[in-house]
Amino acid sequence: MNGAESLVDTLTDHGVDICFANPGTSEMHFLKALDNPRMRSVLCLFEGVCTGAADGYYRMKDTPASTLLHLGPGLANGLANIHNAKRASSGMVNIVGEHSAAHLKYDPPLMSDIEGLARPLSHWVRRVESPRAVAWDVAAAVSKASGYPGQIATLILPGDASWQDAGETVSLPKLPVAQPGKPEAARVEHIAQVLRSGEPALIVLAGRATRGRALELAGRLKAASGCRLATQFFSTRIERGAGRVMLERIPYAVNAAVDYLKGFRHIITVETTEPIAFFSYPDKPSLLKSAGTSVHALAEVGEDGTAALDMLVEALGATSTQAVLQQRANADAPTGALSPTSIAQALAAALPEDCILVDESLTTGRETMGLTVGAARHDLINNMGGSIGYGTPVATGAALACPERRVFCMVGDGSAMYTIQSLWTQARESLNITTIIFANNSYAILKAEYANMGAGAPGERALAMIDIDRPRIGWLAMAKSMGVPAVAVDTAETFHKAIADSVHAAGPCLIEVRL
Amino acid sequence: MNGAESLVDTLTDHGVDICFANPGTSEMHFLKALDNPRMRSVLCLFEGVCTGAADGYYRMKDTPASTLLHLGPGLANGLANIHNAKRASSGMVNIVGEHSAAHLKYDPPLMSDIEGLARPLSHWVRRVESPRAVAWDVAAAVSKASGYPGQIATLILPGDASWQDAGETVSLPKLPVAQPGKPEAARVEHIAQVLRSGEPALIVLAGRATRGRALELAGRLKAASGCRLATQFFSTRIERGAGRVMLERIPYAVNAAVDYLKGFRHIITVETTEPIAFFSYPDKPSLLKSAGTSVHALAEVGEDGTAALDMLVEALGATSTQAVLQQRANADAPTGALSPTSIAQALAAALPEDCILVDESLTTGRETMGLTVGAARHDLINNMGGSIGYGTPVATGAALACPERRVFCMVGDGSAMYTIQSLWTQARESLNITTIIFANNSYAILKAEYANMGAGAPGERALAMIDIDRPRIGWLAMAKSMGVPAVAVDTAETFHKAIADSVHAAGPCLIEVRL
Repeated sequence: MNGAESLVDTLTDHGVDICFANPGTSEMHFLKALDNPRMRSVLCLFEGVCTGAADGYYRMKDTPASTLLHLGPGLANGLANIHNAKRASSGMVNIVGEHSAAHLKYDPPLMSDIEGLARPLSHWVRRVESPRAVAWDVAAAVSKASGYPGQIATLILPGDASWQDAGETVSLPKLPVAQPGKPEAARVEHIAQVLRSGEPALIVLAGRATRGRALELAGRLKAASGCRLATQFFSTRIERGAGRVMLERIPYAVNAAVDYLKGFRHIITVETTEPIAFFSYPDKPSLLKSAGTSVHALAEVGEDGTAALDMLVEALGATSTQAVLQQRANADAPTGALSPTSIAQALAAALPEDCILVDESLTTGRETMGLTVGAARHDLINNMGGSIGYGTPVATGAALACPERRVFCMVGDGSAMYTIQSLWTQARESLNITTIIFANNSYAILKAEYANMGAGAPGERALAMIDIDRPRIGWLAMAKSMGVPAVAVDTAETFHKAIADSVHAAGPCLIEVRL
Repeated sequence: MNGAESLVDTLTDHGVDICFANPGTSEMHFLKALDNPRMRSVLCLFEGVCTGAADGYYRMKDTPASTLLHLGPGLANGLANIHNAKRASSGMVNIVGEHSAAHLKYDPPLMSDIEGLARPLSHWVRRVESPRAVAWDVAAAVSKASGYPGQIATLILPGDASWQDAGETVSLPKLPVAQPGKPEAARVEHIAQVLRSGEPALIVLAGRATRGRALELAGRLKAASGCRLATQFFSTRIERGAGRVMLERIPYAVNAAVDYLKGFRHIITVETTEPIAFFSYPDKPSLLKSAGTSVHALAEVGEDGTAALDMLVEALGATSTQAVLQQRANADAPTGALSPTSIAQALAAALPEDCILVDESLTTGRETMGLTVGAARHDLINNMGGSIGYGTPVATGAALACPERRVFCMVGDGSAMYTIQSLWTQARESLNITTIIFANNSYAILKAEYANMGAGAPGERALAMIDIDRPRIGWLAMAKSMGVPAVAVDTAETFHKAIADSVHAAGPCLIEVRL
């Protein structure tokens, strides 16, 4: 077998059986090796879709996908969503094609410093030096990507390592994978004392502690101690909705977050750090807690938050305490004008059980998305890295990870335009995704941020850099151009109906919400 | 004034008066400072459009534009077209927003190693350390970007350096700018001997030596010595068409290029290096010349090729020799089926005088674009870095540089999808651009490359990674979604008519060529 075949074989042997690909000339042997029924190849028309889809896949599966990218610039096009994935602790194996070693000395046009481009946003970078090393290199990459927290592993594959003989098939044992760190008993006992004190305390959950057993345990702690439970404003993935333990959300805006946290004497963090401002502003703090508030790490990032919560429940004697579960909210469809509130109400009413919500709604969803907490149970995914254009690719990967669950991707028009090529892959693969475009014809969030920055009200020229209304983007035409059926709505009832209708349609669709 | 105002003032003082912007929260003070009538701000919906437009602007003006990008991921989104610009020796000043210095220690979500991301593809990177240093830093950046060859200068602007007081207005003198190196007389004399020998010789022109006086001088050398004149397959910008000295084009395909070069005993290079293969293939050479061919550098990259040609003409006593000029080709419109040949004939017939041709046609144009050499005089621009998605952004920048000239952007469907957001900026700014999409519903070039790589004929799964026909992209709907009028053609005569019609329309339009 050649190096490319060895690579694909080893990936699939080690459980990486999907590849989000945007190949070029130097990857033709890899393409040939993808003619392997054990590997699912998904073509994307832009590399930011590949890497965002790999992030979405990991968020739902907790196992890495692979990407195939074309030399340095192909990797560069994927970096923004690699940044977002890295901040979400999503594991990913990037295969970056490269010229053959002998060709590099001529400085051909597509040559660049691939390691240099990869390192700032990868945990692990390696260049394949020989076709016979491919299998070992891939095993190492998969091991890195599969640990907890997940890591970004980037493997550079020169053409000659791809097309030359890799020797006999080797079946390598899986390498050890980083396991979550064990919580320390002394730290747990310290935090148990904090909760026993009765002083106002907030537990901030993140990582894998916003799902399953961790949620239940947190609910018991709340019931037993009177503490409150929250997440950061953005979370990797929350299991949420009716029948689950409800987590509050620390506000995004600095003043609101400071107000929210003011009442707590203690902040207890689980797989996260203390709350900080997303951006820095003149005359606003970076740290959001009050001066008198103490921060206690129950589990650091990379530690097993669920085990730590288990120990804390035990320490508090709350093992048989019942958690209070979220009630199903009023499922009546709202009527009348579209507003952030009626939008959230329509979502809460119409979202089907076990759907996946990918939220990049920014302006439209920022203040009101909390109103969907009483929807049928669902998973909610946020952008952890803050680079916009994450939503539609992540939805694409999530739908491939969970073909039996419908994905709702809520995205502002400005953000959607970054990686709109996702729609094409969604149509090609018949993915069950409802893309909801909040069309306010503006990077509306920037108007608020302009004021937050103390820059006052934007003048005409500044507004021209914020509003995207000349021309208005025709979302129905955009969807049609990539084979996705679409509908536009401008009332709460038509929005509700469009969501409900989409549940029963197979394949992707798009709803333009005209604001 | 604050740092952001100082920055915009200094940019415009030093001749950089256009900014391709995709701003975010950390750049709000910069946005406010753009409220300066001396600076033209052009909003782009994706950063790859910003950086490609800056490249196109430089190609036509020989002076740098600026870009405004949002932190590390915003820069990352622009890197592929920065790579292409760097390979074209286009100067560019990138302003990358950043968190304030005090905020960075909290590792906020959007933080990344911006210097690390910038360095592999920038010639010069600096972080503003104080608002009072902004003016000096900008002067240095502009000086770097403005030298010959043009350079990529990337300036990182923390929020606090942007919003804090920068002191009084300073009017800095311009810093010295790198000038092209002077050719050595001994080298010129050596090459004069080569040409006098009468042995078959090829002069390969590049950089600024494919325009204006350099072309005329090369034509005299050809007439006087019998040498031939060519360019590499890709050129930064060629002045071309009727009434100009015609340059042959070294073929792209390795075998064809080797055959083409076989007959030459000498290759004389001007502002370029000896011809090499774009990619490496098993069993094909990287160097394209024959074993017995000698290579002589008349002017290295960064040297003044025009001056060197002047000296060479003098040395050969050809100062009064007349160059042979390209005749206007038959301007009859072709009829019948669309084919690469009839497409090139239609272009040759319909292109108006002094238009700008941006060519990213890949498969459709590769073998036949030479047939347009007898069109009315025009400028031809190619992709120098090989990262696809360069065409529509470069056309955008070229149109802003030369508002009185129509730009024709010929682009394959696969390439166009990378940075299709350009259409929106073209509509917003009413740019005179005719985008010609060659819709073969495939990364067709990869089919040939698959075979070139010795991988044989692609199987079904490999083909699924090459063909983009499920679904077919609806180009009329795509154009409409971003406010660009569009027409589809499927015969040579309708294609010819569509080009001719577009010449008289104001603003952008799109022609879908159905292949």
